[in-house]
Amino acid sequence: MADTVYDVTTWAGATVSPYVDIGAVINQIIADIKSKQTTQTTRPGAVIYIPPGHYDLLTRVVIDISFLQIKGSGHGFLSEAIRDESPTGSWVETLPGASHIRVKNNDGHKEAFLVSRSGAPSTVGRLNSIVFQDFCLNGVASTKPYTPGNSKIGISFQSDNDAVRIEGMGFVYLEHAIIIKGADAPNITNNFIAECGYCIELTGASQVAKITNNFLISAWGGYSVFAENGEGLQISGNTVLWACNITLHNVNRASITSNKLLSNFPSMIALLNESSENLIASNHFRRVYGDGTSTRFDDKFGLVHIAGSKNTLTSNQFSFSVPSGNITPAGADPTIVLVKSGDNNYLAANHITSNLPAKVVLDASTTATKVLYSATSAQFDAYTSNHAMVPTP
Amino acid sequence: MADTVYDVTTWAGATVSPYVDIGAVINQIIADIKSKQTTQTTRPGAVIYIPPGHYDLLTRVVIDISFLQIKGSGHGFLSEAIRDESPTGSWVETLPGASHIRVKNNDGHKEAFLVSRSGAPSTVGRLNSIVFQDFCLNGVASTKPYTPGNSKIGISFQSDNDAVRIEGMGFVYLEHAIIIKGADAPNITNNFIAECGYCIELTGASQVAKITNNFLISAWGGYSVFAENGEGLQISGNTVLWACNITLHNVNRASITSNKLLSNFPSMIALLNESSENLIASNHFRRVYGDGTSTRFDDKFGLVHIAGSKNTLTSNQFSFSVPSGNITPAGADPTIVLVKSGDNNYLAANHITSNLPAKVVLDASTTATKVLYSATSAQFDAYTSNHAMVPTP
Amino acid sequence: MADTVYDVTTWAGATVSPYVDIGAVINQIIADIKSKQTTQTTRPGAVIYIPPGHYDLLTRVVIDISFLQIKGSGHGFLSEAIRDESPTGSWVETLPGASHIRVKNNDGHKEAFLVSRSGAPSTVGRLNSIVFQDFCLNGVASTKPYTPGNSKIGISFQSDNDAVRIEGMGFVYLEHAIIIKGADAPNITNNFIAECGYCIELTGASQVAKITNNFLISAWGGYSVFAENGEGLQISGNTVLWACNITLHNVNRASITSNKLLSNFPSMIALLNESSENLIASNHFRRVYGDGTSTRFDDKFGLVHIAGSKNTLTSNQFSFSVPSGNITPAGADPTIVLVKSGDNNYLAANHITSNLPAKVVLDASTTATKVLYSATSAQFDAYTSNHAMVPTP
Repeated sequence: MADTVYDVTTWAGATVSPYVDIGAVINQIIADIKSKQTTQTTRPGAVIYIPPGHYDLLTRVVIDISFLQIKGSGHGFLSEAIRDESPTGSWVETLPGASHIRVKNNDGHKEAFLVSRSGAPSTVGRLNSIVFQDFCLNGVASTKPYTPGNSKIGISFQSDNDAVRIEGMGFVYLEHAIIIKGADAPNITNNFIAECGYCIELTGASQVAKITNNFLISAWGGYSVFAENGEGLQISGNTVLWACNITLHNVNRASITSNKLLSNFPSMIALLNESSENLIASNHFRRVYGDGTSTRFDDKFGLVHIAGSKNTLTSNQFSFSVPSGNITPAGADPTIVLVKSGDNNYLAANHITSNLPAKVVLDASTTATKVLYSATSAQFDAYTSNHAMVPTP
Repeated sequence: MADTVYDVTTWAGATVSPYVDIGAVINQIIADIKSKQTTQTTRPGAVIYIPPGHYDLLTRVVIDISFLQIKGSGHGFLSEAIRDESPTGSWVETLPGASHIRVKNNDGHKEAFLVSRSGAPSTVGRLNSIVFQDFCLNGVASTKPYTPGNSKIGISFQSDNDAVRIEGMGFVYLEHAIIIKGADAPNITNNFIAECGYCIELTGASQVAKITNNFLISAWGGYSVFAENGEGLQISGNTVLWACNITLHNVNRASITSNKLLSNFPSMIALLNESSENLIASNHFRRVYGDGTSTRFDDKFGLVHIAGSKNTLTSNQFSFSVPSGNITPAGADPTIVLVKSGDNNYLAANHITSNLPAKVVLDASTTATKVLYSATSAQFDAYTSNHAMVPTP
Repeated sequence: MADTVYDVTTWAGATVSPYVDIGAVINQIIADIKSKQTTQTTRPGAVIYIPPGHYDLLTRVVIDISFLQIKGSGHGFLSEAIRDESPTGSWVETLPGASHIRVKNNDGHKEAFLVSRSGAPSTVGRLNSIVFQDFCLNGVASTKPYTPGNSKIGISFQSDNDAVRIEGMGFVYLEHAIIIKGADAPNITNNFIAECGYCIELTGASQVAKITNNFLISAWGGYSVFAENGEGLQISGNTVLWACNITLHNVNRASITSNKLLSNFPSMIALLNESSENLIASNHFRRVYGDGTSTRFDDKFGLVHIAGSKNTLTSNQFSFSVPSGNITPAGADPTIVLVKSGDNNYLAANHITSNLPAKVVLDASTTATKVLYSATSAQFDAYTSNHAMVPTP
């Protein structure tokens, strides 16, 4: 084996069993890598392999080198929510599995993995092409309802970073699965994130983040995807459910396309704080009443809420089915799309089906919204005359 | 190596060569895993690696543990149909390759891999996060025409299952490549399924299955994707050809988007048995005449056939090119979209190009269908007045 | 280990260090594979593993066997452009990393990897299911501006090929990252191609190529994707930037959907030489002024340029923002979509936002173009009366 390939279960340098504290072992491996790779041009990083097994993590891993790949053999998801609500006496397995890490920090930290390197200017700290692949991070204790959650964080990037990858991973029962601050071109694809408070948070600022082909299953009280101050975010081909909530604060030129979205609550996609020129196309929105409760949003908030300008909403299906007695405020007509503020938002070729009289609503401050074959006349409430409407016949 | 990592070619416990019967070897490995992992909280499963090689499978593998990952180094596809129709005397390779398994059961079973665990209630039998990745299952004998096919099945899940993954696999010359009964959140992505009778079948009931980024090349007489009683199926980003046939029976809230579809036959997407509130958007449909024959559907059936309500068909391209002499029934105008039954189906912004006078047809029983910029007046035949039509100018 | 698994760093047969010339080592491994696999039915190929490390490649690799999988542990991208424009004295890493190959041929060839096998008829030479996965090809010297570029080529396929895969790879500072001639069903997914002159070129002819879920970041003077004489190309779910240029020559029935596109230049998608019946849907187009200069196209060329018939452009967002002083020719209104030639092109439900008076333009020779809710009256210039227009209100 090349000396850049590590197996947590066989590496001779570990002073503790990886089953007892895989975090400590990985930190020791990183120290070993750094002791061997000492100049600017001798730092290719390494791969750390986590074979199938049940591992505890007591100590936070701190990654401060580029190109590290941490890789297992399976995301190992098992629904702990179903387990915790079921008699399990005769179950064969009651834990997640494959390359399965139980996040049980006793070091005072909240993160299983912290990616951070100090240095000024920020390009010194900037970390490149770190990869998390194909293992399971399990917060152990339920985060549902998330408040008060268990406060555990799966992976947190707190330095500027470029081209990082999170692929094929499993996350369960964490308050925060993935937080990435200062992301440039991160690739978050083919993951299974479920029963977490928050799935993906892009904090600080980000550009051209790509979130594709994931299952994001959770977020009863948090967010499926949260981004702030982002440019060019792409969210495509994901299945996002039971509490789909994609919230963008001051995010521009995002593309949210070809996703399958399902929620028990309003605010499935919210474009806030002047988020503008975003595209929401070819998504399937399903809203039902069921598991979980929330008072965060009432049914006037909209499944899609737009507070920004020049956004585009085209070619989406909205399937709304909630018993009338479960609408808040009581007796209200539920809002499918609320254009809350902004100029020149464009809606075309959307299809709304609902068990109740559902609405596309334009607030009074909005200007020049176009609503083209996206609502029947009965489905349309405009509190401004500054708009154009072609009703679905 | 951790004892959860197996290589079929080096594992000392095998009583038969994996090249002679890889099925028997994998069953022995599974027995070994079970002998070591004996309590509810000591069952992370394992990874079984199949290096490149030509392996025969004489004995069906039965998987009754969660978290097992079976992984090779390449899907190894080679077109056996081209081979079987060509002089191959000077060919270098005449078999598929990489991690290549010839399915040649002599045990009386049809499946190469059966995933099944008994137990009541169904949550006892429920299997989690099993992974098939990056190897080739080859049925050896052609399935074309599929009737009578070779009856071989690549992978069959017959217990309820959660978060299973089939990724990077190759399938060739099997009557049925993948059958999953009782699927919750399966991930079927980046596979190469070709020259099989049926590609993917979701039987029983399923929820939020995700079928993305695959090549599905085959199904002369079967189905590219068949699903029944499904909720929230997502089919996105796939290339599906020579006989694209996606058939949904009583499937609701599916999303079929951004696929490249090509067929020699009608019925490229059929929404049957009240399949409702489905979205078909941003797909490219190509219909030609060529390889293969079929009498399953005539050209009045529609490339898209809708027998359900509240479905949405938007932003698709239809490119029809079949010699007039090959249309059945003879002399008919071919149907591009047939709304066969149901209420409030919505078609908008679709573009139909054809070498013949092609039609969007609304049957007499249909109500409140909307056809908006999806057909010229000449391309439209309504056998009901209960509809709304805005013709493409 | 099975004898079909090779590690470039440990294989005993190498006569040179892989760190000195990984190309020579891989060629020796291929010779070893061929010496062991000698008949048509004993050629499964092999996997060649490249652990993390900095490797030089002095000798071109020639692959003339099917099913070979060359695999690393990480694409290892680091922005060499940012590095070369920054003071790096305090940087920790200054090279790309992970499984990192510096392309430094001293053998007179331009390619790092050439895939080619001679033989007639072409089916003899046809190569199947070759896989490049998860390593980095670095051209070392900048290709920006690409003319005169460094002329280096990452991977070139020059024989007919079927079902080849390029996945999870990194490419940087190459004039040409990937060239595939005669491709049938290639799978190019989840790669990171950046700071190259050309990203992906499908030369000769191709069918049903699939380009999905990639970052394609570069092409200041070349192409993000170039294809000629192609049928059924699918480009979906990609993020393509700073100089997005997808150019199709005589390509028919392509599907370009759900991509996030950004450019500093015109010609983001060009359908040339009678490219027809293509679908461009649910993409986000962003055009800005900034990094890089080019005189290849002026602002009358169009962000989307169509010279073909029966194409479909639906459900896209166009966000144009260029200072008026940077428009060429000076004073012109920039063109968003130019229908240059052809019959029956169809535009519907597109949304154009711009800081300048931007236009959809129909040239005089065009016939029967439909422009439906895709431009306001002020945004529309038709040099023919043979069209239909429904203006966005």
